[in-house]
Amino acid sequence: MMSLEDKGSVQTQTKVLSQGCWTQVSCPCCVSKQVEPLVLIQLSDSVQPVTKRWLISLIEASKRHGGAALLAHPGEDECGNVIVVSAPRCTLLRATEDLGLCKKYRNEEMASFSYHDRDNFTNVDDMQEFLTLAERQYIVKNELDSLQAQKKQRIPGVPEAPGVLEAWENICQKLVRAGVIKDIFPLHDQQRLNDLGRRWYSKKQKWRQPLDAIQSYFGGTMAFYFSFLQFYTWALIPPAFLGLVLTFPLPGVSGHMVQAVFSMLWSTVFIEFWKRRSSSLSHRWGTWHLTERFAEPRPGFHGTLGINPVTGRLEPLFPEWQRQLRVGLVSFPLVGLFLGLVVLGMTGFYHGEALVQGFHQDSGSLFSGVLLYMPSIAHTVYTTILKNVYHAVAMQLTKWENHREESSFQNHHITKVLLFTFFNNFAVLFHIAFYKQDLPLLRKRLASLLILNQLVNQCTEVVVPFIVDRFLSAPHKKKQEDDLEMDKLRAQRRLPPFPGLFAEYIELLVKFGYLSLFSCVYPLTAVLLLLNNITEIPGDAYKICKLFRKPFSAPVSNMGVWQTAFEVLGFVSIMSNCWLLLLSPHVQEFCLEGGISGKNIILVAILVEHVLILVKMILAFMIPDEPDWVRIKREQIEFNSMQALGKQKL
Amino acid sequence: MMSLEDKGSVQTQTKVLSQGCWTQVSCPCCVSKQVEPLVLIQLSDSVQPVTKRWLISLIEASKRHGGAALLAHPGEDECGNVIVVSAPRCTLLRATEDLGLCKKYRNEEMASFSYHDRDNFTNVDDMQEFLTLAERQYIVKNELDSLQAQKKQRIPGVPEAPGVLEAWENICQKLVRAGVIKDIFPLHDQQRLNDLGRRWYSKKQKWRQPLDAIQSYFGGTMAFYFSFLQFYTWALIPPAFLGLVLTFPLPGVSGHMVQAVFSMLWSTVFIEFWKRRSSSLSHRWGTWHLTERFAEPRPGFHGTLGINPVTGRLEPLFPEWQRQLRVGLVSFPLVGLFLGLVVLGMTGFYHGEALVQGFHQDSGSLFSGVLLYMPSIAHTVYTTILKNVYHAVAMQLTKWENHREESSFQNHHITKVLLFTFFNNFAVLFHIAFYKQDLPLLRKRLASLLILNQLVNQCTEVVVPFIVDRFLSAPHKKKQEDDLEMDKLRAQRRLPPFPGLFAEYIELLVKFGYLSLFSCVYPLTAVLLLLNNITEIPGDAYKICKLFRKPFSAPVSNMGVWQTAFEVLGFVSIMSNCWLLLLSPHVQEFCLEGGISGKNIILVAILVEHVLILVKMILAFMIPDEPDWVRIKREQIEFNSMQALGKQKL
Repeated sequence: MMSLEDKGSVQTQTKVLSQGCWTQVSCPCCVSKQVEPLVLIQLSDSVQPVTKRWLISLIEASKRHGGAALLAHPGEDECGNVIVVSAPRCTLLRATEDLGLCKKYRNEEMASFSYHDRDNFTNVDDMQEFLTLAERQYIVKNELDSLQAQKKQRIPGVPEAPGVLEAWENICQKLVRAGVIKDIFPLHDQQRLNDLGRRWYSKKQKWRQPLDAIQSYFGGTMAFYFSFLQFYTWALIPPAFLGLVLTFPLPGVSGHMVQAVFSMLWSTVFIEFWKRRSSSLSHRWGTWHLTERFAEPRPGFHGTLGINPVTGRLEPLFPEWQRQLRVGLVSFPLVGLFLGLVVLGMTGFYHGEALVQGFHQDSGSLFSGVLLYMPSIAHTVYTTILKNVYHAVAMQLTKWENHREESSFQNHHITKVLLFTFFNNFAVLFHIAFYKQDLPLLRKRLASLLILNQLVNQCTEVVVPFIVDRFLSAPHKKKQEDDLEMDKLRAQRRLPPFPGLFAEYIELLVKFGYLSLFSCVYPLTAVLLLLNNITEIPGDAYKICKLFRKPFSAPVSNMGVWQTAFEVLGFVSIMSNCWLLLLSPHVQEFCLEGGISGKNIILVAILVEHVLILVKMILAFMIPDEPDWVRIKREQIEFNSMQALGKQKL
Repeated sequence: MMSLEDKGSVQTQTKVLSQGCWTQVSCPCCVSKQVEPLVLIQLSDSVQPVTKRWLISLIEASKRHGGAALLAHPGEDECGNVIVVSAPRCTLLRATEDLGLCKKYRNEEMASFSYHDRDNFTNVDDMQEFLTLAERQYIVKNELDSLQAQKKQRIPGVPEAPGVLEAWENICQKLVRAGVIKDIFPLHDQQRLNDLGRRWYSKKQKWRQPLDAIQSYFGGTMAFYFSFLQFYTWALIPPAFLGLVLTFPLPGVSGHMVQAVFSMLWSTVFIEFWKRRSSSLSHRWGTWHLTERFAEPRPGFHGTLGINPVTGRLEPLFPEWQRQLRVGLVSFPLVGLFLGLVVLGMTGFYHGEALVQGFHQDSGSLFSGVLLYMPSIAHTVYTTILKNVYHAVAMQLTKWENHREESSFQNHHITKVLLFTFFNNFAVLFHIAFYKQDLPLLRKRLASLLILNQLVNQCTEVVVPFIVDRFLSAPHKKKQEDDLEMDKLRAQRRLPPFPGLFAEYIELLVKFGYLSLFSCVYPLTAVLLLLNNITEIPGDAYKICKLFRKPFSAPVSNMGVWQTAFEVLGFVSIMSNCWLLLLSPHVQEFCLEGGISGKNIILVAILVEHVLILVKMILAFMIPDEPDWVRIKREQIEFNSMQALGKQKL
């Protein structure tokens, strides 16, 4: 079915571009009647035709001649400021092997794709069925990214200073710096996008998303986000139910305690079962055996040129221990420093507020009344500046750490920003819970955060898109139908670039934090989260489909560092819950009645905390990280490759 | 050098057995002038010649005919009660591939051995150079263990009831149960053993052991134990030095605190660097890529016959989840129950003692004086019975869990016994430290345990063997020289079987526990441990070389569960040290002076504990588990096998 859609859409979209203007393929097996436009390179308006011609010739040149072995189309005419790029079959197949993607073998099992053995894989003659759209587009981007200058040369049509390419310099990065390339983005396929939207956010049944179609159209990172969102929504049902029950006080049962113990166990089981789900998804999508570390380094990576001891290729080398040292001795303390600054700001704010309040009570003048607002304003300004500085520092630090693989770069960058954002969000709550030890205030604060958040979300993620869709874009759409197809490309160019999934994930994480860290204080948290998630899914889906340019999305085998973040939060939740239980009125009363000293009850709480951590670890150990069928398939492949290796050497 | 030794020793040892009596090899490449006796099968005295002939024919039969494809020698004559077994070249080589051992390739790198590619490995024509003695002997044992009845049959010469072999029944296990086989053990090679002893325990310089020679002669498990012992001894120098310094009270410095923080960091760094050492050893010895899970299951494994989905071989199958359930729902609670019984016994003992003391003070009669001893006696009897029952239960439970791989069986069994032994050893100390909170008593107890232990050790491990060696066995030895060589085999049969390394490891672990858990109470712990280890190395070495039969030793890639045990202890040590610091007189004084409440100081201690655990985890994460060169070699091999797999399918 997917293949029919695919082919249909190519026919509609290729009306745009005259097929004759594509550069020619050298390899006979790659010749096809219709070329599918995959990626658009947006050049600056002032670009010289000679530069554009030079870039097109680079794109089409074979790899041996330092090119990308892709197909290029100059757009409307030679002077236009776009280049549309596609990829011939051989380039796609070779890249599939380099990425380590698994595809269906003739025995119906998934197997690591091998170019030499290509004829034994199913659908290998039809690229639109063999690779997903997202994979084809990612491959094109990857090939463009790996363009390197063979020797020192000048870029034709670019003035002296920025126009000199050093040997081994990355060409695309250089062209972006020189202002020749404004942007590179994958093209939407309107027909498939509309189909996807119909099955995704427009339908009534909200509980199951077309995950395979999402993976095929938007790629792995996006599909993993939505799979996780769906899994998380389902998983919220038990705590939501418990929360509803516990809002009514039950006789003889401490709701606090039940909620705390339940949420600790729930968070463990949740994350362990997500791991199983994640591993079966990655098997289904053929990404459980990616070979990024054997591929070319990421474009920003630098080092002394040398022979990679593993792959034997000439490439920049950078010792692992030096990176570790940079992470451990510079990045780590710097991040700690910024976290300290957050705490400093908060204590400063509380201090200032107390000071101003006292002053106002003493004098009661208009001046002191105005002064009352000062701490808040100062804190907001401070936080905003700190945040912006930190974001810049985090990016620079991660670049300076010089990661070889893109995923490692992403993980380190996300970890840095994540820690800070999380700290910023939770500092006040932790302050109330652990320093002020004021449970009623914590409850009020949590409820207002959740409900406010919920309302804002509803507004921005559901109402606004709905209005945009119904009243603003609908007439626009109809008009577009009559326009030239080339205008569709233009329309895509006008959309803002997709800002990435960081904001989406951090929202989930922060809310998961509310639930697992403090749920025993406010039992309705899970109910509100459940409601939020149910509106979040179609909202996010709509946003991604309609409001942004299509993003590139690498094939990934899991959620990366986000999974770890959820796991860590599960451990922190034990400490926080034990502490909150200690503060809870039930326990305090119980102590008072039983005549137990405050010291002893703390010791009991520590014991309980340690035991619960042990239970959590045992539970995590007991639930295997991958389902049996995935384990067996993985071992089968390992066994086969071991056997094959043994025989092959003959 | 090793090869010369090897050949020399074969020539001496093979005097024993007339070469002509070995069974013939079928494969022309396996024919050799001299056959090396590797393993001895000790039959019962009453065994019928027909049974012995049947067994020999099974041993020499090819695998296709359900045999072991080994070489057998009937000993002195056909009626004797021994069978000496050796292995032909092809059997050894095939088994090397099945085990997944890495050997030196022609490019001087280590590579997984492949039978098809055998000619590209160095020394492949000389088995005594290609495989170590321990590996050859382990392979013979493995082949004997995997003998299975092809169909239901009777064992010739064994009476009806125990003499019927079911189809697929394990033959060696059956013969042991039927009383035909009394024992199977590898043969010592006297000349090599003497050489090894000279370089190991007899030499003056105690700090470096001939680890490669130990690995070659005694095999992986033994070599890892002694490597760890040596590494541990070196690692004890810094804490011993610190302990010596801290026994003299320093002005203004809390020795307690310095010692506690130091020992926490030290234990982390120690275990992380051991992991690096361990991985480089396993690379050096070619065992980092063992393929036990693709090999045949261990002899005791049972299940319904079926096709293994991974290897495609017919073998018993047992679902993983069922094993996990057995571990989690039966073994785990039962172990917990026994640990509870230990605690119960201890509290009973304290309770009884208090009762009896009170009674004696009241009455003061002879009867009550005798009664004073009762709690101790009762507790000792109780502990002994409990221990024996537990050991039996642990073995039965582990068998019932039905592990497929021998290493998994060992790890689960060791874990069970380890937990109990550790608990038994530490229950009293924990009771004093955490319940009685009596630091002076803890110090006294620790010192007496360490010093007593030291004296007993010196006695049993150094003095006794010395006496045995010098005065008892020396004249015996000289006499033996004149005896027939066959008597040497007899002498080996008379030695007791090696009891395994459990006792050695647990001794190290318990002492590591004294050091890491309580060292801040008694700073001289590390000094005593260092002295102990220095005498332990030659003592253990002597014991293993002289006092026991040679044990079989599987190739292993690390210390297995022992490494985890040391790691876990490192974490527990943080909790215990924080607690002991809290109790220490310095801190108590400090609180009293500063007017800090007991409640707040506990909260600070918890905070410190959590921060230290975080630091420990970051430290463990920062120190890579394998040295760079091992990582590069590992990745090289992964890359090559990926490449080879891709090309091979062509």
